Amino acid sequence: MKKEVVVGIDLGGTSTKVGLVSETGDVVAVQRFGTQGREPFDSFIDRLGKVYDDIISQHEGIEVKGVGIGAPNANYFTGQMMNPPNFSWGKRVPLAKDIGARLAVPAVITNDANAAALSENLYGLGRDLRDFVVLTLGTGLGSGIVVNNQLLLGQDGIAGEMGHVNVRPDGRMCNCGLSGCLETYVSVTGIKRTVFKLLADLPYPSSMRSYSYEQLTGLLITEAALAGDTIAQEAFTYTGEILGTKLADTVAYLSPQAIILTGGLTKAGDLLLNPTRAAMEERLFHMFRGKVKLMISEIGGEHDAILGAAALAWQEFD
Amino acid sequence: MKKEVVVGIDLGGTSTKVGLVSETGDVVAVQRFGTQGREPFDSFIDRLGKVYDDIISQHEGIEVKGVGIGAPNANYFTGQMMNPPNFSWGKRVPLAKDIGARLAVPAVITNDANAAALSENLYGLGRDLRDFVVLTLGTGLGSGIVVNNQLLLGQDGIAGEMGHVNVRPDGRMCNCGLSGCLETYVSVTGIKRTVFKLLADLPYPSSMRSYSYEQLTGLLITEAALAGDTIAQEAFTYTGEILGTKLADTVAYLSPQAIILTGGLTKAGDLLLNPTRAAMEERLFHMFRGKVKLMISEIGGEHDAILGAAALAWQEFD
Repeated sequence: MKKEVVVGIDLGGTSTKVGLVSETGDVVAVQRFGTQGREPFDSFIDRLGKVYDDIISQHEGIEVKGVGIGAPNANYFTGQMMNPPNFSWGKRVPLAKDIGARLAVPAVITNDANAAALSENLYGLGRDLRDFVVLTLGTGLGSGIVVNNQLLLGQDGIAGEMGHVNVRPDGRMCNCGLSGCLETYVSVTGIKRTVFKLLADLPYPSSMRSYSYEQLTGLLITEAALAGDTIAQEAFTYTGEILGTKLADTVAYLSPQAIILTGGLTKAGDLLLNPTRAAMEERLFHMFRGKVKLMISEIGGEHDAILGAAALAWQEFD
Repeated sequence: MKKEVVVGIDLGGTSTKVGLVSETGDVVAVQRFGTQGREPFDSFIDRLGKVYDDIISQHEGIEVKGVGIGAPNANYFTGQMMNPPNFSWGKRVPLAKDIGARLAVPAVITNDANAAALSENLYGLGRDLRDFVVLTLGTGLGSGIVVNNQLLLGQDGIAGEMGHVNVRPDGRMCNCGLSGCLETYVSVTGIKRTVFKLLADLPYPSSMRSYSYEQLTGLLITEAALAGDTIAQEAFTYTGEILGTKLADTVAYLSPQAIILTGGLTKAGDLLLNPTRAAMEERLFHMFRGKVKLMISEIGGEHDAILGAAALAWQEFD
């Protein structure tokens, strides 16, 4: 019998990764190429096809069940990428249709955060859970909600936009046009903004004072906080307090068994987790207190997004 | 063939209603008796049993498929009423087990707001919808969330506690021990509090000035607002703005097709609906704008809660 695999594609702004993934989450093969989102979409499909042909030619005796694609602004229901920023591929990119056609296998797409949630469900901390929420704390804040072992999609396939839940109406300006969105506080970009606010508000010496806004990274803030820098530590406390307060709302809506955090900001570990958990518990409705696990994803490693896309394909085409 | 029915029970603090309901939502029979929550639970079961026997004896040729019960703090998974306020029946009341045993049919329970959501799904505005949210704006604020035609229950059967979503951390004190809970603003009690705040803040003449806090009712505020009373109208505007702002978050989580409002406060119609819709649209993430219907339930009438409980039984035992 042939070995069954799916193709997992992580379509990012800079590069695209293509992997073959078994049902148990083994990444059998992986190749990467430049996405070149400013070149025509046809040229992307062309290059993707060649990479795929190359991978397949090196693996005999496999059966490809389908392809899952994680991409920004990807809509599960329509199979299209909607108004993707940093791409010149049009307003509605027929991702599932064109990739499925070129690879000659059924194709399904979802956004990055939903893929991360599926990845946790199949391969991560969500394996034994039925109801949980995954938050990706990267450049922005993405979220994927799993209810009864199914991804919550909503009417248009884009439920779980927790990055744009409101912290306060007169809060920080968000790229989306609203003010006070959660991701303007809780994300790598959010904590950078917080560090700059704290550098303005507080007189303490800090290694953070030697970086420009452009130079500062989440990793630098994390390393400074772990090394005892007061400003950096305070930035994580502030971030965790806002996140925890909003997670109490999340629990009131969804009553999940667990909330799993992933992405760059989670490298700070307990520095983020402790203030978040404390603020969440403090604001939880009494019936929920002490019942919701708050955890950092253990998946890690460079193949996260491929695994998430593959998890979607396994769910859809197995 | 016998006519199939279910029993719908609306267990309230003051009175309990028992009805026979067909699958199309016809209430074939209904009786009411005093709940007497301060008397022992056994006595309640006894009286309920006699009322049920009486109803059955008057209806030949029916087959009872099961019983659905809507009750405060009812937990779908455990079949228990948890710490019900205003009852002396213990901390975990075995509602489903004891009622099922006495009536000799399978029994299922849920809280009032979840029953209302099921009622909309089977008999109301939710008939043709797959994903929607129902808010009951009565003494408190309850919510029931339907995802993919299923009630969202969460890990413990009590998901959808939107009454305790946070409006602002330093906001009004709530009976639950937290501050700033949504139901302290958006409910009959909430709008009473708002009227009293406005009577303090604003110098305008108002018919509201002739009532004590105890005398004031949602109906009085609604009638005054409809008659042009400035304070009462302003109270609905304030209530709608807070509700709409939080509903934008609801949409970011769930991306529902519609939000259906029901309960005493909705008698004000557009006075509540217009400011709510405006505030919601203003704060919606751009991908959701103009897509979510905001409606007032059309079910009305005295049998709402029985229909909701019956809907649960039909879903469970059909």
